Amino acid sequence: MDIRNPYLMFLGDAPDDLAAKVADGVAKWRPDWCKGQLRLEGCRADLGLPDMTLEEGLAAGCKTLVVGVANRGGVIPQNWRDSLETALVMGYDIASGLHNKLADIDTLASLAREHGRRLFDVRHPTQDFEVAKGSRRPGKRLLTVGTDCSVGKMFTSLAIHKTMQERGMKASFRATGQTGIFIAGGGVSVDAVIADFISGATEWLCPANDEDHWDVVEGQGSLFHASFAGVSLGLLHGAQADALVLCHEPTRTHLRGLPDFPLPDLAHCIRVNEEMARMVNPAARVIGVSVNTSKLSADRQDAVLAEIEKETGLPTVDAFRQGAGRLVDAL
Amino acid sequence: MDIRNPYLMFLGDAPDDLAAKVADGVAKWRPDWCKGQLRLEGCRADLGLPDMTLEEGLAAGCKTLVVGVANRGGVIPQNWRDSLETALVMGYDIASGLHNKLADIDTLASLAREHGRRLFDVRHPTQDFEVAKGSRRPGKRLLTVGTDCSVGKMFTSLAIHKTMQERGMKASFRATGQTGIFIAGGGVSVDAVIADFISGATEWLCPANDEDHWDVVEGQGSLFHASFAGVSLGLLHGAQADALVLCHEPTRTHLRGLPDFPLPDLAHCIRVNEEMARMVNPAARVIGVSVNTSKLSADRQDAVLAEIEKETGLPTVDAFRQGAGRLVDAL
Repeated sequence: MDIRNPYLMFLGDAPDDLAAKVADGVAKWRPDWCKGQLRLEGCRADLGLPDMTLEEGLAAGCKTLVVGVANRGGVIPQNWRDSLETALVMGYDIASGLHNKLADIDTLASLAREHGRRLFDVRHPTQDFEVAKGSRRPGKRLLTVGTDCSVGKMFTSLAIHKTMQERGMKASFRATGQTGIFIAGGGVSVDAVIADFISGATEWLCPANDEDHWDVVEGQGSLFHASFAGVSLGLLHGAQADALVLCHEPTRTHLRGLPDFPLPDLAHCIRVNEEMARMVNPAARVIGVSVNTSKLSADRQDAVLAEIEKETGLPTVDAFRQGAGRLVDAL
Repeated sequence: MDIRNPYLMFLGDAPDDLAAKVADGVAKWRPDWCKGQLRLEGCRADLGLPDMTLEEGLAAGCKTLVVGVANRGGVIPQNWRDSLETALVMGYDIASGLHNKLADIDTLASLAREHGRRLFDVRHPTQDFEVAKGSRRPGKRLLTVGTDCSVGKMFTSLAIHKTMQERGMKASFRATGQTGIFIAGGGVSVDAVIADFISGATEWLCPANDEDHWDVVEGQGSLFHASFAGVSLGLLHGAQADALVLCHEPTRTHLRGLPDFPLPDLAHCIRVNEEMARMVNPAARVIGVSVNTSKLSADRQDAVLAEIEKETGLPTVDAFRQGAGRLVDAL
């Protein structure tokens, strides 16, 4: 998967900004790649990008139409299809984060074939992976792990990667979810891989590299989450991480989607992640904590960071407000 | 999946008994279901069952032709196809453990449709699973876990289930791999499920039941195995097991397929499995150890069992030689 940029961001008739959350993440992290947005009649989402037609997007150099928006009811509506078909004819590749595959829509598949365009269904890995080998490989790897799902692992990974780049370190961001894949221009939706190959897909994603190169691998889920822990462990083993960063959202009252499950204690979560990571890399350790404090009142934010830093003995930052400098310092 | 029995066991032209390992397991555990074997010219495997033609199998009451044999080079040869096509026309369903799907072979798929037969590709789950809910459900569940892959988890599960049945306990064997699925007449190959749904598929496999009913769930892999631990953890969480039985093969010098990985220490393996299991069921504990002593010299077998029993403080048996009575006693 090698999605060409720049992008024209397709928002369809998204009813609100939340439906365009993926596109919004891409536009925030790759402002240089996102030249414009294409909105159909009735669209109520806005990325703050110039509105463009397909023609204007092409003129601005766009190579890929990125569908980073949720569709309603699992059906791709006809007015979206019209735009996507025209885009293929005009010269765009299309990269989609929809559950429904573009490649399963006959008209799109045949237009793509006919015109030599590519369709990327980023939620649906198409390549065959091997079973993980587990053998030690050169290069350094950092993986974000979480007390829960959706606590800022992608954001923290990107902030760390950005800091590494600013410092002139050799570093790559390795995406494991749809938003991250658009931001990286490639990656693997590890939660959509066949179970036997979770770790193998992760090994493929962050392979051997220069000894002083860091792969910053986007984590998924949590070892403590009853729905997704298998994915998290497969990723932890496949990444063979040297450094882990624990991500946390302190206002959660229970694990996402699981009302009966309290969040794990931070020290416990750190210990379990280190223990499982050390099965494949004895040097693995949690080197810092990244806390999403956006839901705390302003006067509580710094206090909570200080409390967690004291409790864990690890550098603790809100990567959004403060950047990831202290996490990179800790490596 | 609800595979009808009795079975006619299709061995094709298997070059040796190892190639018919799956069929052999089925014949051993379900002698009443396995009425005969169908061998093509050149077959060198033998289950010790009466040789039957398709006609003779039908006359003996067989309802399903079971393909429990490895094919060579990932291709289903023409002479196999001829037999499978004829079987469908004559009245058989076909259940296959091949990597290649029968349902992908046009002639077989259309014959099955035309004649109202069913094709079961047991390695390839076809139903859609939900994401695991994690909520506590009634009924008791026992899961076999391992220090490694292929250490006797299926065998131990079946021995426990058999003992429970002999004692008049309410119990079901829940299969998670191809041999187990043929033996149970249904199940899910959990390692072939999309990663997000490992735990959800397991919840589906062993759902709510009577308070005094035991589901005996066949484990897969090991939390310590760098290739497959994600599957093992998803299964551990989805099973929400009350009781775990640790399976072990004491002559292994390293994890299967991973020369750099020593086997975990038993006490460590017990602690980690209990810790991860308790995330979804705080009452979970390892209640016994099942050791495959077949590769030890006869004079060492009992000594090794006694050593492990002393080391772990848990009832330790070789379920093959001694049955699972002491494990069921420990519940």
